[in-house]
Amino acid sequence: MDKNKSVKVFAPASIGNVSCGFDVLGLAVDSPGDEVLLSFNDSAQVTIAAIIGDDGRLPLEANKNTAGVAVIEFLKSINKTQGVEITLYKNLPLGSGMGSSAASAVAAVVAINHLMGSPMKREDLLPFVMEAERIACGSAHADNAAPSLLGGLILIRENHPLDIISIPTPEELFCVLVHPHVEVKTKDARSVLKATIPLKDGIKQWANTAALVAGMMKKDYALIGRSLVDVVAEPLRSDLIPGFEKVKKAALQNGALGCGISGSGPTIFCLCQGKENATRAGNAIQLEFESLRLQSEIYISEVNRKGAYIID
Amino acid sequence: MDKNKSVKVFAPASIGNVSCGFDVLGLAVDSPGDEVLLSFNDSAQVTIAAIIGDDGRLPLEANKNTAGVAVIEFLKSINKTQGVEITLYKNLPLGSGMGSSAASAVAAVVAINHLMGSPMKREDLLPFVMEAERIACGSAHADNAAPSLLGGLILIRENHPLDIISIPTPEELFCVLVHPHVEVKTKDARSVLKATIPLKDGIKQWANTAALVAGMMKKDYALIGRSLVDVVAEPLRSDLIPGFEKVKKAALQNGALGCGISGSGPTIFCLCQGKENATRAGNAIQLEFESLRLQSEIYISEVNRKGAYIID
Repeated sequence: MDKNKSVKVFAPASIGNVSCGFDVLGLAVDSPGDEVLLSFNDSAQVTIAAIIGDDGRLPLEANKNTAGVAVIEFLKSINKTQGVEITLYKNLPLGSGMGSSAASAVAAVVAINHLMGSPMKREDLLPFVMEAERIACGSAHADNAAPSLLGGLILIRENHPLDIISIPTPEELFCVLVHPHVEVKTKDARSVLKATIPLKDGIKQWANTAALVAGMMKKDYALIGRSLVDVVAEPLRSDLIPGFEKVKKAALQNGALGCGISGSGPTIFCLCQGKENATRAGNAIQLEFESLRLQSEIYISEVNRKGAYIID
Repeated sequence: MDKNKSVKVFAPASIGNVSCGFDVLGLAVDSPGDEVLLSFNDSAQVTIAAIIGDDGRLPLEANKNTAGVAVIEFLKSINKTQGVEITLYKNLPLGSGMGSSAASAVAAVVAINHLMGSPMKREDLLPFVMEAERIACGSAHADNAAPSLLGGLILIRENHPLDIISIPTPEELFCVLVHPHVEVKTKDARSVLKATIPLKDGIKQWANTAALVAGMMKKDYALIGRSLVDVVAEPLRSDLIPGFEKVKKAALQNGALGCGISGSGPTIFCLCQGKENATRAGNAIQLEFESLRLQSEIYISEVNRKGAYIID
């Protein structure tokens, strides 16, 4: 093994929840994403050399950073000691609901697996990312980790034991992510949820989740649009995002099939048929936020269908 | 129009709810089903000449019988007066959870539409069956009506306005229905349900419903099996069916992919890959009921993929 070899890996952002798919669906986008440059060295430790783009907000201790934790857990599982140096290019905004912590961990674990000679299949890397999520965010969920690692739309039927299902998506499906510059703490987004829901809302939610999967597999864009309805989390969480109702209305009137909160917010996502509709919807959302004097970034992208990948 | 013409139509039984798909999924079976012989006459009224097989339990007044109501509503909608005589061959046990009331209405409305020269498309007949269900059962649900009319596995995304989605099913999928001779009143089956459910149970339910649809469309029998889990209604309703836990266990150990309560019971359904597994599972269930001194009938059948059809 080349002691000084290195690799750079890109791992995409992902839309968590996907409206009706609260806690069970995640969708990888082509861009943006985080990048990890991972090199071997002669030490016996995993270290983080630098994090670029986080304004110093993320911990540099490897055992507290999702990229570091994923690598440490991977090495532990294959029972190897290896000196590893990580440089993390943090392109994704933190706490934005775009699966930022998962993307860093995914990039890191794909990189270490590659440099070790690929002892594990791609899918088998997921538990290390989930463990990193658990340490960073408090719960070992796969809803961002799985799409960022594997690409596409992923249904998490069960987290423990893990049972994930890849759902095909139609070719012209475009994703819009608009990140307004407001902070929504995951803790707050969690705490507004109620421990129980009306049965009739539950019925609507599983009708829509099932219909969304059917719409994706049938390539039925109108059905995808009708199904992108969340009666459980969105009515409670939308209060945390300034102007949400107006923003959503503007998106739906400007080419979005559906529109919702990505992850626990504040990022807004839309799904659209074709790039033109996506651009129109994204601009309409940004304009609404501007009218509230809120700056935002727009990301327009196809669905990422291959997951994280080596770029160097 | 031939004033004295007549037609005989078969409409299949259907599995309501389909475990995780509580209130939103229905699956038509090839057999058994109800039959309606419908003839024109010179009167201006819809009458029921006879009902065979119900032991006199169903009303002979056309406006109180689902077959009669469906025909009356159909004629009203096309603004026609027509003398109609209905003979209903009631092959499905009443109040069994096999979609008996819907099947009678479906057979009748397909028959009248045919004799009137098919002024309506098949799908457009659904509201008349739903109206018949409303009068007979108190609520205008499509979960038995739609599969009996159209065939296959039907997802009801919304009842009002109606939005139904046909979900393809894999070729080797077999259905088992076992009807034990116990009475479960729909009212009781409804009243054991709670108005709210834990959010975590809701999440499981929509994960499984989405996974079941994916399993069907991917022809993944193992996934179909893993997804046939109902954490909402079954835990409450199973108490109304003697020996349910043992029966279910026996089915799963004898070739069933999954097993649950059809509609509001007491009929038990299984889905299986292939006829051999279906027969084995059905027999195992019947044996369990026998050990409780409960008689039962077994129905083994493929999925009905065309809905109701003309037999004469």
